[in-house]
Amino acid sequence: MIKKVVFALLAIVLVSCDSNQSKKESLSASKDFTKYVNPMIGTSKMGHVFPGATAPFGMVQLSPQTNFEVMFKEGKYNSKTYEYCAGYQYKDSTIIGFAHTNFSGTGHSDLGDLLIMPTVGNLVLDPIKTEKGEKGFYSKFSHENEIAKAGYYKVDLEDYKIKAELTTSERVGFHQYTFPKSSESHILLDLVYNVYHHDNKNVWTFLRVENDSIVTGYRQTKGWARTKKVFFAIKFSKPFKSYGHKKYDKTTYNGFYGRFDESNNFPEMAGKDIRAYFNFDTNEGEKIKMKFALSPVSADGAMKNLEAEIPHWDFNKTKEETQEKWNKELSKIEVETIEESQKETFYTALYHTMLSPILYEDVDGKYRGLDQNIHESEGFTNYTIFSLWDTYRALHPLFNVIQQERNNDMIKSMLAHQEESVHHMLPIWSHYANENWCMIGYHATSVIADAIVKNVGDFDKNRALKASVATANVRYFDGIGDYLDYKYVPDDKSHSSVSKTLEYAYDDWTIAQIAKSVGDSSSEKTFLERSEYYNNVFNPKNGYMSPKLADGTFRKNFDPLDTHGQGFIEGNAWNYGLYVPHQLDKMVEMMGGKEHFSQHLDSLFTMELDDKFIDKHEDITRDGIIGNYVHGNEPGHHIPYLYNWTDNEYKTQARVRMIMDTMYGTGVDGLCGNDDAGQMSAWYIFSSLGFYPVTPGSNQYALGSPLIKNAILNLENGNTLEISTENQSKENVYVSKLTINGKIINRNYILHNEIMNGGKFVFTMSNQPNK
Amino acid sequence: MIKKVVFALLAIVLVSCDSNQSKKESLSASKDFTKYVNPMIGTSKMGHVFPGATAPFGMVQLSPQTNFEVMFKEGKYNSKTYEYCAGYQYKDSTIIGFAHTNFSGTGHSDLGDLLIMPTVGNLVLDPIKTEKGEKGFYSKFSHENEIAKAGYYKVDLEDYKIKAELTTSERVGFHQYTFPKSSESHILLDLVYNVYHHDNKNVWTFLRVENDSIVTGYRQTKGWARTKKVFFAIKFSKPFKSYGHKKYDKTTYNGFYGRFDESNNFPEMAGKDIRAYFNFDTNEGEKIKMKFALSPVSADGAMKNLEAEIPHWDFNKTKEETQEKWNKELSKIEVETIEESQKETFYTALYHTMLSPILYEDVDGKYRGLDQNIHESEGFTNYTIFSLWDTYRALHPLFNVIQQERNNDMIKSMLAHQEESVHHMLPIWSHYANENWCMIGYHATSVIADAIVKNVGDFDKNRALKASVATANVRYFDGIGDYLDYKYVPDDKSHSSVSKTLEYAYDDWTIAQIAKSVGDSSSEKTFLERSEYYNNVFNPKNGYMSPKLADGTFRKNFDPLDTHGQGFIEGNAWNYGLYVPHQLDKMVEMMGGKEHFSQHLDSLFTMELDDKFIDKHEDITRDGIIGNYVHGNEPGHHIPYLYNWTDNEYKTQARVRMIMDTMYGTGVDGLCGNDDAGQMSAWYIFSSLGFYPVTPGSNQYALGSPLIKNAILNLENGNTLEISTENQSKENVYVSKLTINGKIINRNYILHNEIMNGGKFVFTMSNQPNK
Repeated sequence: MIKKVVFALLAIVLVSCDSNQSKKESLSASKDFTKYVNPMIGTSKMGHVFPGATAPFGMVQLSPQTNFEVMFKEGKYNSKTYEYCAGYQYKDSTIIGFAHTNFSGTGHSDLGDLLIMPTVGNLVLDPIKTEKGEKGFYSKFSHENEIAKAGYYKVDLEDYKIKAELTTSERVGFHQYTFPKSSESHILLDLVYNVYHHDNKNVWTFLRVENDSIVTGYRQTKGWARTKKVFFAIKFSKPFKSYGHKKYDKTTYNGFYGRFDESNNFPEMAGKDIRAYFNFDTNEGEKIKMKFALSPVSADGAMKNLEAEIPHWDFNKTKEETQEKWNKELSKIEVETIEESQKETFYTALYHTMLSPILYEDVDGKYRGLDQNIHESEGFTNYTIFSLWDTYRALHPLFNVIQQERNNDMIKSMLAHQEESVHHMLPIWSHYANENWCMIGYHATSVIADAIVKNVGDFDKNRALKASVATANVRYFDGIGDYLDYKYVPDDKSHSSVSKTLEYAYDDWTIAQIAKSVGDSSSEKTFLERSEYYNNVFNPKNGYMSPKLADGTFRKNFDPLDTHGQGFIEGNAWNYGLYVPHQLDKMVEMMGGKEHFSQHLDSLFTMELDDKFIDKHEDITRDGIIGNYVHGNEPGHHIPYLYNWTDNEYKTQARVRMIMDTMYGTGVDGLCGNDDAGQMSAWYIFSSLGFYPVTPGSNQYALGSPLIKNAILNLENGNTLEISTENQSKENVYVSKLTINGKIINRNYILHNEIMNGGKFVFTMSNQPNK
Repeated sequence: MIKKVVFALLAIVLVSCDSNQSKKESLSASKDFTKYVNPMIGTSKMGHVFPGATAPFGMVQLSPQTNFEVMFKEGKYNSKTYEYCAGYQYKDSTIIGFAHTNFSGTGHSDLGDLLIMPTVGNLVLDPIKTEKGEKGFYSKFSHENEIAKAGYYKVDLEDYKIKAELTTSERVGFHQYTFPKSSESHILLDLVYNVYHHDNKNVWTFLRVENDSIVTGYRQTKGWARTKKVFFAIKFSKPFKSYGHKKYDKTTYNGFYGRFDESNNFPEMAGKDIRAYFNFDTNEGEKIKMKFALSPVSADGAMKNLEAEIPHWDFNKTKEETQEKWNKELSKIEVETIEESQKETFYTALYHTMLSPILYEDVDGKYRGLDQNIHESEGFTNYTIFSLWDTYRALHPLFNVIQQERNNDMIKSMLAHQEESVHHMLPIWSHYANENWCMIGYHATSVIADAIVKNVGDFDKNRALKASVATANVRYFDGIGDYLDYKYVPDDKSHSSVSKTLEYAYDDWTIAQIAKSVGDSSSEKTFLERSEYYNNVFNPKNGYMSPKLADGTFRKNFDPLDTHGQGFIEGNAWNYGLYVPHQLDKMVEMMGGKEHFSQHLDSLFTMELDDKFIDKHEDITRDGIIGNYVHGNEPGHHIPYLYNWTDNEYKTQARVRMIMDTMYGTGVDGLCGNDDAGQMSAWYIFSSLGFYPVTPGSNQYALGSPLIKNAILNLENGNTLEISTENQSKENVYVSKLTINGKIINRNYILHNEIMNGGKFVFTMSNQPNK
């Protein structure tokens, strides 16, 4: 056992080092990039990000929860609970506690596990209101007394005069509560609380008070993740003087035969809905600290994580170590911007690209697989939270530039997932050893192809091909059988038929790239053929990708502007219909040629979209819309760059600068839609640097218009790329010239190698388009 | 992985061998003792044993379930569901299926996990009645077409013309169903069915159809075991042509977004209440076989168990191997009896002593601990189902004679349990990684002391002492704090106060024996003092052990005959009050001396007990009562032997013969009360041989009157003990002489060594008492 822990400690030390550590250390010693990170950006409206503390890609994401009023009072799915996917809304003035798991930017709610709330005074275990009508255990707070930093969160809980501070390592939340003097100080562990749009998410809770300062247990829920277990181990810095719990479920266990008084200092608790409390005497200003470790495997695993990652009680030490980890990651791109505030936007976006996927294994490499068995990650580090319909677009491509090692691990995690899958499918939208099948396509293949084409990682390409081919042939999944039989998804057999056909076709092209990389020309041919199926849903009569019936005719009653029931999902034919990222030249030609297509884009960005098409969608709000272009959601993220496939590339340059200016900002409403697990932010990072991966799975990046004045990319391969601009200004959005290492570039794309080889890009900017 | 399985296989081979294997093999080749085992004995009325198939101490106990009518129709605790603790009552004529876990002889219901039912015709998933009012999937059966043997069960399911045959290895159930010709043959896997006296026991079910013939999963329940998980892996001999499932819980998961058709051949199922089905075409007489492995750890573990224990499809091979294992165990005592039918009683009793505790670990040594973490049994084999208030009396002492290796493992399992316990307590009544705290005392200490005194096992005695002392000092458990403060359990502070005081005092004496064995004279002294506390509840004014209040006065309104609310549990002052097994001489003196005490015993066995004292108790029925002596329940099992502490030893001899004759038999009602995990049967085995461990923790056995004509004990140490009789007959119940190796024994007890050294006991029998 001891050996294992030592090994685990060693592993952590090794993980936190990389090949050019000395360089990074000197950088970080001189430059602090965490000061530009403002986790509050996007916490208002629909950003769905959380302001709490976490380490880069950390398993513990420890954040204040303000959503209890809605969740508890209404207890049903509505636009308000949708607001609370990350548990927090800036407009709120009360906090119910601090939960250890939170999604970042998702368009669906879950997690919110293991809520901790410190209180003072009469013990109150009800969050909103007691049975007697007294106030619940929530507290007022003020943003004036709130600090959110990368790796650190602080708030004053006004009702209790408690200062709450949070930091974390990867697997351990570190709480520090400064109490007033009281003989009735409490720390509540609320195992009823959840973030989810349905009531009754809890399945089972198991809790043990191991001694006067250690608590272990687990909770199982049936939320978005259908069979989810989170194990934990808690260590208090000070022994509690007494403790207890209350069960809230009606199906309370009735064993024990009265042999115990369960209500008082009883160390064993189990049931569906439990709230536990730990009581203390505190002096004025006394700090009580808690280390709260998670594990996907067992309480034992959580305890090992706790001991391995934070073996001390020095809150500031952990905080500083985690901020140093953040600085190390953030310093991979050092930017100078036109306006100082843009640095805050940039580094907060960069921060948001590192909140998912998250680490999902214990320090000893054990993790819970999709099959609910315990596996060991041999030769990789296991990750979870794959929101792939979102993140294959720009987040994983960004990782192929600045997080190659992690992206390699993520792909290996996806391959492990595929082997654990009873469907033999790569992840679609997976988290916490579950697949929730959210959104369409099988875009893990794109992530794999993109890494292969960009020479990232050492995963087994043949295994990756096999996994991709298996995934793409699960006939019973979401119309794939019909897609294979009809060479499109018939609209009378499957909803979102056009979106599915387009995305399957693109994904099939990425599989062809994987096949090509291993010399499997037969598979390459098969999937290249499949990648052409998008043609079969194009209706030349109306010029749109259109819903087609099984009988081969296009559906009548088709509205290309309607985002509902027209063969698209979260989009319409006008915008989602432009989704052929692997054959854009052909698509443009099919849609009437460059000039006509350019005009379509112009119309897209300038037309008036009727409210009726917007109100139906949670994922599409006015904030994220420009005409009929929806930046607040994913299927169109490549569209601003599509002018590159016309003769009006300059319009891309103006448009992306306009989007960066208007759709991102430093306010709490600085995200125009769900950050979608980092995809929105990754779009911003790429676009800020002047290029964007329109076609993941190719080695090309479409050119845009850089927002930064200067950027230095400190690449993992040891190379340094400088991206600099001349005549950069808010107005000079047009690129008149680009040189790479002094050589003029006369194409509207750059190559991955041109980034990774390092050197210097110089964009010469102008207020006049270079037509 | 392969290595582990090979190792596991090796381990199994080794386990099935013992030191004198060659001898056993020759014995078993010549003698078949399994033919005397009739698992049907005790399946009527309150025996609570099951007729299904299992290996000795096996984890899988695969048995037909007939209780569905009561459980489903009434769905609440009543005397009828109490009848069905083992899932089966002989009077029934319908079977609902075959469950893989069953208690043997307990006085409380649980288990009944993972029900399999083969059917033919329209698919029916409801057990009793469909929504349309059609017949459920149960089937009529007849005892004429039913065979129950050690390791084998067979029944014809008349409604479907299916012959169902069951056998098992330790961890794998082996089903063989002979179908009629049909294109609608089904095998149902019912994960709703349970044995328990409350509705709504299910917590979660997880199921995967891995391919066309393998299914894995687990089920979690909150029955008597509060947090119980059973994992499984199933292999079918023939691929199913299709499959599906139905969810019965209202809280069905609503994910999946319609991307799948869950109702048809969908390989992933999860929820609270699920019934799955697998469809086949069958020819006339076609056999479909299933191997159904369990694991306390994971589905992976179950699959490993399956492959390691039954790597073939030869049903008869497994059946024969398991019957050979039974024969090996049964042949440890070879008896000749007065009447041939007594052999059936004897060997069935011996069989019943090997149905619990059960093995509780995977072939790789992993098991689920009380802390719900996964442990590895280093240096022992882990067991569960410890019904210790029952089994410390005679079952574990019997193991100290014929199952020393297993008893050693059981004690090590108890010590592991203690380390995993958040209360740091040895097991009270534990099963499946849970403690249900049934009945009083902490009798694991008696099991430990008895093994130590009898020199059984190589467990760490110091650790055992520490564990025992810790257990006996958990002040918040069941009045222990008061017991320590008052030196008795005050009746106004705790129910069953007298029973608790008596049992704690005895248990404390056993702890003193453990302390003595390691030379800890301080602990020995402390616990010897505590062992005297029984004196404090003896009321010399009425001559009974009596409920005493905290103020030191005895309670008024005390009825020594009432079994309810008089300070006793499942007994009264008349019978339970004689419970001072460690100081019987003193007790007899305290109660008025030998003659007076002898008269008390006479009265006890001959008095008329009013019905009102009987009807209140499930565990006490007329069948098990002689006067005011209750053989059908445990607290008086030593009482028939207590004449040995008077001058009328001969009355013990007559009484125990009378009890063996009247309370045990070869009928289906051959048990007069719950077999209580083997305790009733162990009483019979000892008594048949002529002696009984009245005081576990001492090396003495009180003499009785042997029932057998001749017995050969083939001991694990290689020695052979022959117990023979002269003038044995039904009438000659009195022992006129006992010689050990030719030497006349002039005491009314024998010593453990006299058994284990082997040699020869000769009882000379007479129809006249040897006064």
